[in-house]
Amino acid sequence: MPKPEPPKPSRVLRQYFQHQGVKFRFVSQRLRFPNQTEGDREYIVHPGGAVAVPITEDGRFVLLEQYRFAVGDYIYEFPAGTLEPNEEPLITAQRELAEEAGYTAAQWDDLGRFYLAPGYSDEMLYLYLARGLEVLPEPPAGDDDEDIKLVYFSTAEFLELAARSTLTERPCMDVKTLACFQRAQQVLG
Amino acid sequence: MPKPEPPKPSRVLRQYFQHQGVKFRFVSQRLRFPNQTEGDREYIVHPGGAVAVPITEDGRFVLLEQYRFAVGDYIYEFPAGTLEPNEEPLITAQRELAEEAGYTAAQWDDLGRFYLAPGYSDEMLYLYLARGLEVLPEPPAGDDDEDIKLVYFSTAEFLELAARSTLTERPCMDVKTLACFQRAQQVLG
Repeated sequence: MPKPEPPKPSRVLRQYFQHQGVKFRFVSQRLRFPNQTEGDREYIVHPGGAVAVPITEDGRFVLLEQYRFAVGDYIYEFPAGTLEPNEEPLITAQRELAEEAGYTAAQWDDLGRFYLAPGYSDEMLYLYLARGLEVLPEPPAGDDDEDIKLVYFSTAEFLELAARSTLTERPCMDVKTLACFQRAQQVLG
Repeated sequence: MPKPEPPKPSRVLRQYFQHQGVKFRFVSQRLRFPNQTEGDREYIVHPGGAVAVPITEDGRFVLLEQYRFAVGDYIYEFPAGTLEPNEEPLITAQRELAEEAGYTAAQWDDLGRFYLAPGYSDEMLYLYLARGLEVLPEPPAGDDDEDIKLVYFSTAEFLELAARSTLTERPCMDVKTLACFQRAQQVLG
């Protein structure tokens, strides 16, 4: 495996302000970019996230129909959550599958890592395929405000759902969920 | 086409602060959610974004290898940008294809709309397939700080790139780009 090149961070010339939120930090800075131009930029400093792509024995994807305050609506998405300090992303994915969907999985496969919103967040998202699902008799408690219902889609139903998004029908999906589906299809063949 | 249900926004009980950035607003609020629980939340209020998925006559995807200050690195992604006030998303996608990639396209197909980062942003992302590409002799100027190189991937090369992300190789891709590829494959058949 070739050693990755080091990343190329911008130089922080000045920090105008920062706000430490519950799950991430928001900063506003004057930056000098690698091409030597400068600019004022705001973005989210995030610990990273992990997603579980759970598939049942009969090939159905397990999704959440979940309330998301930021978009003010219920949306379809795979179970996901924020990394705790020093937490391995796989552990995060396993915890979120248990808390949000009430499942454990016997087999976990690495689907890779992708940036979530590189326009304004440094969040790296780690994707895992979760197979060999078992229902937890007593799922651990999640966050208080979670408002979640489980939904199951076959590959055909998932594709139909993705295509329906051209009709601006609700509930919507997020790009993470569609990207996870793509990687799962690629690995499942 | 069935009429979509109205969305279900949370009730803002108090706004702690807000910061108006160049491209979006950051807010910190106390919210009451539809399930009647309450919580303090921060998120980005965003005008929305649009992506062009350009494909050449011989079936290669046109991607940018672009510097992104938020992640401090160069990444692979499809041309995309933020909606101007009252702008149709298709116009945004057409502008970004011209400015960032230096192309016009004769045929545009709607690939749907998906939330980008519903954990902390209300950004809706609109996807378009762009075919019948023509190189612009004099591409319009983009943002000053843009640091972009064009790269071309066949379907097989794109899939290999996505799979390599399990090896933590750089440059990385973002979930938007992978989601766009999935929708493009679905439409192209």
